[in-house]
Amino acid sequence: MVYNFFGKDFAMEDNEIELTTQSLHELVIKKNKVALTELFNTTPVIDIAEVASFLPMEDLIYIFRNIESTFTASLFDELSQEAKESLIQAMTDKELVSVIDAQSADDIADTVGDMPANLARRVLSAADKDMRADINRLLKYKEDTAGAIMTTEYLEFREDLTVDEAISQIREKGKEAETVYTIFVRNGARKFVGTVDLDDLIFAKKEQKLEEIMNENIVSCRVNTDKEEVGQMFRRYDLNALAVLNDDDCLTGIITIDDAVDVMTEESSEDIQKMHGINPIEEPYLKTSAKSMMVKCAPWIIVLIILGTFSSIVLSSFQASISAIPILAAFIPVIMDTGGNAGGQSNALMVRGLALKEFGPKDYLKLLWKETKNALFIALIVSLFAFVWFMIEQYTGLVHNANIDVDGVQATLWNGLCWNEKFFVSTAVVSMVVALSLFATVFLARIFGITLPIIAAALKKDPALMSEPFVTTIVDVASLLVYFGLIMAFSQLITQTEQAII
Amino acid sequence: MVYNFFGKDFAMEDNEIELTTQSLHELVIKKNKVALTELFNTTPVIDIAEVASFLPMEDLIYIFRNIESTFTASLFDELSQEAKESLIQAMTDKELVSVIDAQSADDIADTVGDMPANLARRVLSAADKDMRADINRLLKYKEDTAGAIMTTEYLEFREDLTVDEAISQIREKGKEAETVYTIFVRNGARKFVGTVDLDDLIFAKKEQKLEEIMNENIVSCRVNTDKEEVGQMFRRYDLNALAVLNDDDCLTGIITIDDAVDVMTEESSEDIQKMHGINPIEEPYLKTSAKSMMVKCAPWIIVLIILGTFSSIVLSSFQASISAIPILAAFIPVIMDTGGNAGGQSNALMVRGLALKEFGPKDYLKLLWKETKNALFIALIVSLFAFVWFMIEQYTGLVHNANIDVDGVQATLWNGLCWNEKFFVSTAVVSMVVALSLFATVFLARIFGITLPIIAAALKKDPALMSEPFVTTIVDVASLLVYFGLIMAFSQLITQTEQAII
Repeated sequence: MVYNFFGKDFAMEDNEIELTTQSLHELVIKKNKVALTELFNTTPVIDIAEVASFLPMEDLIYIFRNIESTFTASLFDELSQEAKESLIQAMTDKELVSVIDAQSADDIADTVGDMPANLARRVLSAADKDMRADINRLLKYKEDTAGAIMTTEYLEFREDLTVDEAISQIREKGKEAETVYTIFVRNGARKFVGTVDLDDLIFAKKEQKLEEIMNENIVSCRVNTDKEEVGQMFRRYDLNALAVLNDDDCLTGIITIDDAVDVMTEESSEDIQKMHGINPIEEPYLKTSAKSMMVKCAPWIIVLIILGTFSSIVLSSFQASISAIPILAAFIPVIMDTGGNAGGQSNALMVRGLALKEFGPKDYLKLLWKETKNALFIALIVSLFAFVWFMIEQYTGLVHNANIDVDGVQATLWNGLCWNEKFFVSTAVVSMVVALSLFATVFLARIFGITLPIIAAALKKDPALMSEPFVTTIVDVASLLVYFGLIMAFSQLITQTEQAII
Repeated sequence: MVYNFFGKDFAMEDNEIELTTQSLHELVIKKNKVALTELFNTTPVIDIAEVASFLPMEDLIYIFRNIESTFTASLFDELSQEAKESLIQAMTDKELVSVIDAQSADDIADTVGDMPANLARRVLSAADKDMRADINRLLKYKEDTAGAIMTTEYLEFREDLTVDEAISQIREKGKEAETVYTIFVRNGARKFVGTVDLDDLIFAKKEQKLEEIMNENIVSCRVNTDKEEVGQMFRRYDLNALAVLNDDDCLTGIITIDDAVDVMTEESSEDIQKMHGINPIEEPYLKTSAKSMMVKCAPWIIVLIILGTFSSIVLSSFQASISAIPILAAFIPVIMDTGGNAGGQSNALMVRGLALKEFGPKDYLKLLWKETKNALFIALIVSLFAFVWFMIEQYTGLVHNANIDVDGVQATLWNGLCWNEKFFVSTAVVSMVVALSLFATVFLARIFGITLPIIAAALKKDPALMSEPFVTTIVDVASLLVYFGLIMAFSQLITQTEQAII
């Protein structure tokens, strides 16, 4: 059967049944073991786990007692944390031992880490001695390090083993390893010296030694390597598995590609969150409580309100100008928004490029030169367009300049002012001042946008923290200063052209 | 040797030499074949390719003529497009044939797709007949589909093959396949029916048939499946390779995890770009021309300037209020920025959650209810803080209210107004109006932030296009209306408290 992604139907006695918690519940109620086994045979476990997480506990227990343990072992791994915990409480000691035995130490460590202490103790006592030691060791590594995501189930052979010996050892011990596609090789001093890919073993002659066929041009990381860097290594070197070494250069764990993919996804999500002023949230949106959402989101908003004080200071010091030519206040939002938008663009490209190591702080001058060209070009096009648009806004009366009302009637093209030269000049002067400010705003915003994350990176901080919200707030101050500077410079001209009309 | 990531040193005759274009150039000049071979033996090819891309052409040719073809084949694949093109021009026909022969059809198709026609013809004529057919077929698939990223080099066996036969076939043909870790199985009617993992082959008995040991609970995609969905399938099902089927359910190509990782990275980058109003840029930042940057960035800025007209209309219609109580203009930036920041937060969580399929448009009511609680909570905390902060701003004279100057002297706590009750009431009333507006702004922004991407998703558009810039622009209008609404409602109170001072 070809299984169709996201269309969770399964074939049963030639009927397509939709896989839901309800349909699964019914199979259990009917004690239809044949159909359940067929379901596990033909459907990826994660799809079953997603609906099984909501089953009544007795249904889950029935499944665990009646379905082959290879299936239930992976089902357990994919269940929600809540379902796992209830299941552990409901199982007999013997059942628990067989479930835990089929898991890998790193998955159990992840589950145990988020569990109430009494349940965690139950799980640990169900694990055999070696696994318990591994779990305890894994629990000690700091979050966000290679140690915390690595697994301890791998195949490590001595370099003087022959291909034939290696293959028979794989047959013997391979079932317990997280991957047999990469075999790790150590020398006589137990130091890690290389890897052998399973296909190289198959292509090699039986009597060749591992040291003859192993790859030595390989990368490895340390237990305390940041997991972001682990993701980058997988991406850059197209790895299937990565060796994690201790300080003595001995292998102490491995990271496999499926865990690395999860890390990369998490890291991208975290970057996106930080870029919008959210402290990283680990749970999915729907599972995050309002309180925890507030704790993650409110702090940066408050910091930015404090930083926003500078804009308020600038605006409050130019109260007189605003009172004299109030139409100019009408363009403050568009200048500020455009600054935020333009800065957000160059900033996003910079933060992402830094995250993917396309460039680093040392490239700043090159980046600045590049962005200066980009920024001038974009600022020119945008402000030329804006100039024309602002004239249209005033000409059609969308934006109202109370200073040029004649007897309380707004000046617009509909009032016979279509070809009026003085009206034209007056709108042109106002538009010019705003468009010039916009030019400066776009230019400065794009430059600030690349500069702030580079400063963060140079200070070994996460560039994603210096993102759009900060750029916007800082550019606001700069653009308001430019705007009011230009207003001061042109205020006489504006007033003259206004007075020429009335 | 344990190779250290990002510290590109390599060991040579017990000296650590830094791997740079210069050090590589010197090895070539000295015709030090031994050292070069040692370098390739101990260093990941991508690190060599990165510096080799800048070598003079004769150096590259020297390397290609003197280093083992297994190394140069992967070196060629990792070189920059410019280096590849110059190399193709410089090689003899025979050399070109041997380089092309060692590549996989999908990599060549990617390279050829970006090449001038004369070079592309040279490459195609150097490829053998089968490969040429594959390349031409791959070139026809639309960008962003599974067809365009799949490879045609895979192992497909009939279901009635025995394990023993399969292993010997792998030994024979496996070298040319992109992966031997997943073997694809077809039935007598040539339809795709399952996969066998290489380790299952190794653990199985020799005389077992593939159909007995194959996985049938597997996913597959079609040639026109969107590559974003391909990335999601790899992430969800922890795949090593994915079958790509044609309309007859026959295997026509496969996608391997390394290509899927690239796709996931690209998709995340594209989402981040779209979320900041950038039409997707495929080249790295430093390789994007100013003109192409303008074409990708300016359109959305201009669209947003047009949308910004509504803010200008609102502000220009309340010119009288601003003239009467000019201090209120000083708080416009902080209200607008906070709206953008708060909306950007919920929006980023929503766009990412939709991209990772954590939820869909059908969950909108659930999401709305959830976000209503979040938004109220965050709005409450933020506006309570802001109320106090705005009072401090006015009390300390950071923000100046010209209306309550006494004889041209600004009212601040430093002027003996520290315990002045009337001054306190006046700043409290202004702060209350602004803080109430901020409450409404944060609440509306968070709700708009989740609503816009859901609307996009429901209309089958990319949610990332309905991101912060749009949310900000729309929230601006709403929050300015609320702000001026509150100003109108409280203007008498504000004026009274102001006049009580002077």
